[in-house]
Amino acid sequence: MSKGEVTRAAILDSALGLASRIGFNPLSIGQLAAATGMSKSGLFAHFRSKEALQLATLEHGRERFTDSVIRPTLAAPRGMARVRALFDSWMSWETEVLEGGCVFVAASIEFDDQPGPLHDALVRNQRDWMEFIEIVARSAVTEGDFRADLDVEQFAFMLQGLTYAFHHTSRLLDDSRAGDHAQQGLEQLFAAAQG
Amino acid sequence: MSKGEVTRAAILDSALGLASRIGFNPLSIGQLAAATGMSKSGLFAHFRSKEALQLATLEHGRERFTDSVIRPTLAAPRGMARVRALFDSWMSWETEVLEGGCVFVAASIEFDDQPGPLHDALVRNQRDWMEFIEIVARSAVTEGDFRADLDVEQFAFMLQGLTYAFHHTSRLLDDSRAGDHAQQGLEQLFAAAQG
Repeated sequence: MSKGEVTRAAILDSALGLASRIGFNPLSIGQLAAATGMSKSGLFAHFRSKEALQLATLEHGRERFTDSVIRPTLAAPRGMARVRALFDSWMSWETEVLEGGCVFVAASIEFDDQPGPLHDALVRNQRDWMEFIEIVARSAVTEGDFRADLDVEQFAFMLQGLTYAFHHTSRLLDDSRAGDHAQQGLEQLFAAAQG
Repeated sequence: MSKGEVTRAAILDSALGLASRIGFNPLSIGQLAAATGMSKSGLFAHFRSKEALQLATLEHGRERFTDSVIRPTLAAPRGMARVRALFDSWMSWETEVLEGGCVFVAASIEFDDQPGPLHDALVRNQRDWMEFIEIVARSAVTEGDFRADLDVEQFAFMLQGLTYAFHHTSRLLDDSRAGDHAQQGLEQLFAAAQG
């Protein structure tokens, strides 16, 4: 990476951390400058507009998500081990990578009623993520770990339910049992998928 | 209800509809005046501050939720029929009562990182709701519909997962299969709870 690319990546890391706490809607060049101590004019030279900053931050989030969740999942052996790797990687992403938890859960609430480029970028992300879960679940079918007639779309929906319930329960309610519930939920999905 | 109470309830219905679309954070006396055509000074006489308006709107949401979800659930026969009534009532609440869907799902994302009276009121609501699901699930245990050793906290977590996945998937992705997935998910939870 060139020096300019390194700087840009560092700025976007800060922007992503900020978005995970306050959301994407309030993420502006002014807010980012105030939160990081960087100069507004310097940030403006990088992003030109609030919307461009928001889009670049979302795209940066997608890259971080690829590194944190997609890569380690694909590094695991095909089959149920890979589904488990997907779930474990998502849990690390949610609890360790960003202070405010998964930025896509929050953004999908912010933009569900709000048309525009952010909405469209987010829809693409979330469709890709759902398809990825389905593909990984299908690998467990072809490996013989899950039963042949498993509805992988239904499986992906249920797995996403666990991640959403974990995000909502652990963050708002500060419920220390949320991690155990999510983990036990995964075992229930596995039992049903094998049965 | 007195004329004043009727007026106040009508204003809070509008505020709740607005919050379901734009969220609670941007809900101000000025925004509500602009959205409804009511006078700012009239609204100010009712609520005095943005935070008071937000708290009154959240409390109004709790009352609407009680009428739409809690009452019809308790009207159903104890046992599995009551769990089904809880789920069906929540789905109606999510899809029919407010234009922007369940206002508590969105608010719990908005306030999970933001301390204050709104956060605290929301935490109370969500704890009550989770306990209510547990109590209803326990009625299915005592009626013999669910097995005696069912972990009702785990069941409540899984059921909430279905509602969150439905909200996120149907609203952002406009996924027409979300309703079927949620319904099929409930049958899976029932099968596991009886097994």
